[in-house]
Amino acid sequence: MVKPVSRREFLNLLAAAGGAGAVIQASTALGLMPAGASASTLDLAAGNGRSALILGGGLSGLTVAYELGKAGWDCMILEASHRCGGRIFTVRHGALIDEIGNRQYCEFDDEPHLYFNAGAARIPSTHRNVLKYCKELEVELEIFINENKTCWVQDDAMLGGKPIRNAEYTTHMRGFMAELMTKAMSEAAMDEPFTAQEAEILLGMIRRFGDLGEDDVYRGSFGAGYASGGFISHGVQKDMIAFRDLLGTRLGMGLLRASEGETGPILMQPRGGMDRIIDGYLRQVGDRVSYRAMVASIHVRDDGVEVTYDQDGSRRRIRADYCFNCIPAHLVTGFEHNFPADYVRALKYVRRGEAYKAAFQAKERFWEKQDIYGGITWMNNRSRQIWYPVAGMHKRKGVILSGYDFGGGMYHTRMTQEQRIEAHLADGGKVHPDYRNLVEKPVTIAWHRMNHMLGCAGYWTRRLDGSWAPEDEEMYHLLQAPLNGRHYIIGDQMSMHAAWMESALQSAHWAMNDLDRRLRNTPARDSTAP
Amino acid sequence: MVKPVSRREFLNLLAAAGGAGAVIQASTALGLMPAGASASTLDLAAGNGRSALILGGGLSGLTVAYELGKAGWDCMILEASHRCGGRIFTVRHGALIDEIGNRQYCEFDDEPHLYFNAGAARIPSTHRNVLKYCKELEVELEIFINENKTCWVQDDAMLGGKPIRNAEYTTHMRGFMAELMTKAMSEAAMDEPFTAQEAEILLGMIRRFGDLGEDDVYRGSFGAGYASGGFISHGVQKDMIAFRDLLGTRLGMGLLRASEGETGPILMQPRGGMDRIIDGYLRQVGDRVSYRAMVASIHVRDDGVEVTYDQDGSRRRIRADYCFNCIPAHLVTGFEHNFPADYVRALKYVRRGEAYKAAFQAKERFWEKQDIYGGITWMNNRSRQIWYPVAGMHKRKGVILSGYDFGGGMYHTRMTQEQRIEAHLADGGKVHPDYRNLVEKPVTIAWHRMNHMLGCAGYWTRRLDGSWAPEDEEMYHLLQAPLNGRHYIIGDQMSMHAAWMESALQSAHWAMNDLDRRLRNTPARDSTAP
Repeated sequence: MVKPVSRREFLNLLAAAGGAGAVIQASTALGLMPAGASASTLDLAAGNGRSALILGGGLSGLTVAYELGKAGWDCMILEASHRCGGRIFTVRHGALIDEIGNRQYCEFDDEPHLYFNAGAARIPSTHRNVLKYCKELEVELEIFINENKTCWVQDDAMLGGKPIRNAEYTTHMRGFMAELMTKAMSEAAMDEPFTAQEAEILLGMIRRFGDLGEDDVYRGSFGAGYASGGFISHGVQKDMIAFRDLLGTRLGMGLLRASEGETGPILMQPRGGMDRIIDGYLRQVGDRVSYRAMVASIHVRDDGVEVTYDQDGSRRRIRADYCFNCIPAHLVTGFEHNFPADYVRALKYVRRGEAYKAAFQAKERFWEKQDIYGGITWMNNRSRQIWYPVAGMHKRKGVILSGYDFGGGMYHTRMTQEQRIEAHLADGGKVHPDYRNLVEKPVTIAWHRMNHMLGCAGYWTRRLDGSWAPEDEEMYHLLQAPLNGRHYIIGDQMSMHAAWMESALQSAHWAMNDLDRRLRNTPARDSTAP
Repeated sequence: MVKPVSRREFLNLLAAAGGAGAVIQASTALGLMPAGASASTLDLAAGNGRSALILGGGLSGLTVAYELGKAGWDCMILEASHRCGGRIFTVRHGALIDEIGNRQYCEFDDEPHLYFNAGAARIPSTHRNVLKYCKELEVELEIFINENKTCWVQDDAMLGGKPIRNAEYTTHMRGFMAELMTKAMSEAAMDEPFTAQEAEILLGMIRRFGDLGEDDVYRGSFGAGYASGGFISHGVQKDMIAFRDLLGTRLGMGLLRASEGETGPILMQPRGGMDRIIDGYLRQVGDRVSYRAMVASIHVRDDGVEVTYDQDGSRRRIRADYCFNCIPAHLVTGFEHNFPADYVRALKYVRRGEAYKAAFQAKERFWEKQDIYGGITWMNNRSRQIWYPVAGMHKRKGVILSGYDFGGGMYHTRMTQEQRIEAHLADGGKVHPDYRNLVEKPVTIAWHRMNHMLGCAGYWTRRLDGSWAPEDEEMYHLLQAPLNGRHYIIGDQMSMHAAWMESALQSAHWAMNDLDRRLRNTPARDSTAP
């Protein structure tokens, strides 16, 4: 039994609870801050035969190869794995998930809509550079559904674990919140007087927001959905849920915030899988990629950069005028190098996030029978989320995300593959009772154990007010500047908004623009530092 | 100058303002009430050669022809106009808009994505029968975007008419509302004590809902969008907007309610235009439709129904065992008939809504340059809304809805075509300054003047508590029952939720199920009333 608090104790709680800060910090861990439209533009001078060596075939590396290639540079990408794209990874029939200690080949049926975007999965409409490249590279887009009020909310601590529709939770909670607001309007002193018209507009808005009765009391709303009828017979309202029952779950903190932040704008995805973007790049620069080429050493010289790498059992050597490096910073320090100590310290300073995702192929699209087309079910367990696909509406099968654990990614990582699968079957079964029989062919992926990555997005320390700690600022700018004017670290790790494709693109653009500016200000002397 | 009100006057306003009732009534005028999942099922007995005459090739009529046809009935549809679908009408290159006094041929370019759903435009995921037929008739669906926080809000009465992003309005308003709530929590007596955990959850939720500072004061949020930066440099917050500036517009009543009600579930549309659904039906029953067949008389006999109609300049006669009639009820009373007086009274009782829509072809997709992909801009003028298309993302041109006036549909109807167009150019120009030069090839449609329809959806009087007036109940049930067991009135006009396709389908299902039940309970005697 929890002990009730008096009104006075409640007020103390109010004062002591620490404000919204902790919440903001949590939401930025995976780069979930909203981002405005800040497109970067490129207008590169002709390369005149200059060469660029690109380490890593992630999005930022491919972008450098594509853009410098257009400007006439001689580019080469060394990619350590068997595929380009990095954390842009669409898992489909036959795909290898190269997680160290848990390699899997995907057994989904071989159909175009049966895929799982195991990494990047959403493109906000405000991410202009991602959209620009989709257009330029002829990648067809479709709408992605994130928030869906028809999906479920489940928490063992609410209503004895019975799942309810998101619309039930949010509609009822809005009603009770609106009641609270009208109380404040009638009992709390206003800071400033309202005009009669302002008061009427504010009241009207609060009443509609909460669907309040004429006495400003909330007694339920058809917004939560009909229990029955509504077309040929009168609609019957669903049973009410009491305020304090809804307060059983902490999920409401996120649910009432949905459609704000990074997932506030319309979201999109390439038709057929996120790696359609990588395919688009490879149509342009595919012949510049050398696969299974594992960097062994990087030496930055006055007149260029020398790299050795292992490929096909041999050590090879390559030299270029400039180098763009999107390998995760914490792995770069493991190579042989001639970097100065402060550069090494900065490379080591970039921490990497943990992120874990899992998916099932569903034998039938059971969610569509529940009126669910896309969107996310929220659960207060370690699987956290179930994502239903937009792709393949009304077809027989579909692929669903069955778990998405970030921040606490080590929880599932420590398990065997069988234990991971069993955990998701048990968690999802609380929402879909027949889950275990409806799904098959699981895949799981712990990004911090993926070969050649060993970490999810890099991150920097954001303080409660959104600013960065001085040490982070110093390290970030040290690493952003090209070493000896020749070696650029790029990728979403070199942004203030990690874990988004737009960040990788803007980092690549920043580096290319920086180099271009320096080259334009220098008399043309090939193979010499500007 | 408006006169400020004192706190006491404000409280009086609060008491007198009449509650949410008026708002609910307004929102139901076009059938915008939420609807739960109430699928109807059909299991019809074999037709054994029975015949059905279907008056009107709207969605309900096509459904009867399709379903009874599958069960072995002999069906025929008489359609007065040159096309089936009724208010499912996709306007594209060459389409005739047969508005009486304002006939137009659409001049949009001839491309698949350049279309305008002039009638039905949205399928909620809870409308199971619409989705069932889309699946069965192989109509490919895609997501429709309704609410989009990146779209604009414009009101001459707010901020001097300057448009702001929906996200700015809603994020700031939520902040101020959350402030009000925390005041209520600290100053108003709680009806019941909360546990410490409940209090913490509620506070956490309110603070996240409003993105409040640690002192529970709202000072702006990145949720409103960045002014600049956010990726390679730190994000700069957009300028705040004062609470009372936001209170300049009444649009907030709708904006804070968005994603609730009928448009709360995920919405969908057929890829290529809403009439893909009609195409699907016509692939099955196209040979059963007789076009330009205008009904002249309906006589309901003991052993069937006799209808005369005019076609190709001749009066023709047809007879069937049963008749399903989806012609608008107020037009049916204009035919010769042998209906009893109470049936005629009921037919005349069904009022018809007014609805007006307009669209432009845009020479370029200027909204995508503003990060807008689908969704609705809200304006406090008579054009009311601008809808940006999901179809054809990143292509050169697009078709936008430039005005949608329901309820007050006569405002534009009384204008000439040139005046209508000028009105939309002027209204839209307040949001998109170069609007006039960006759009071309307008179409407008006043549904209440469309030939063979002369009205939008039928409607019945819903009282503030959601129930119907006794007279409406009486008339509805009188009209729903088959006249002489032979003549059914069908369509969304015979539902409690007019103006949605699901309503037309459920009405058709109700009528077929009613007839089937009666036939099963009667010894088989063809051509005799059961």
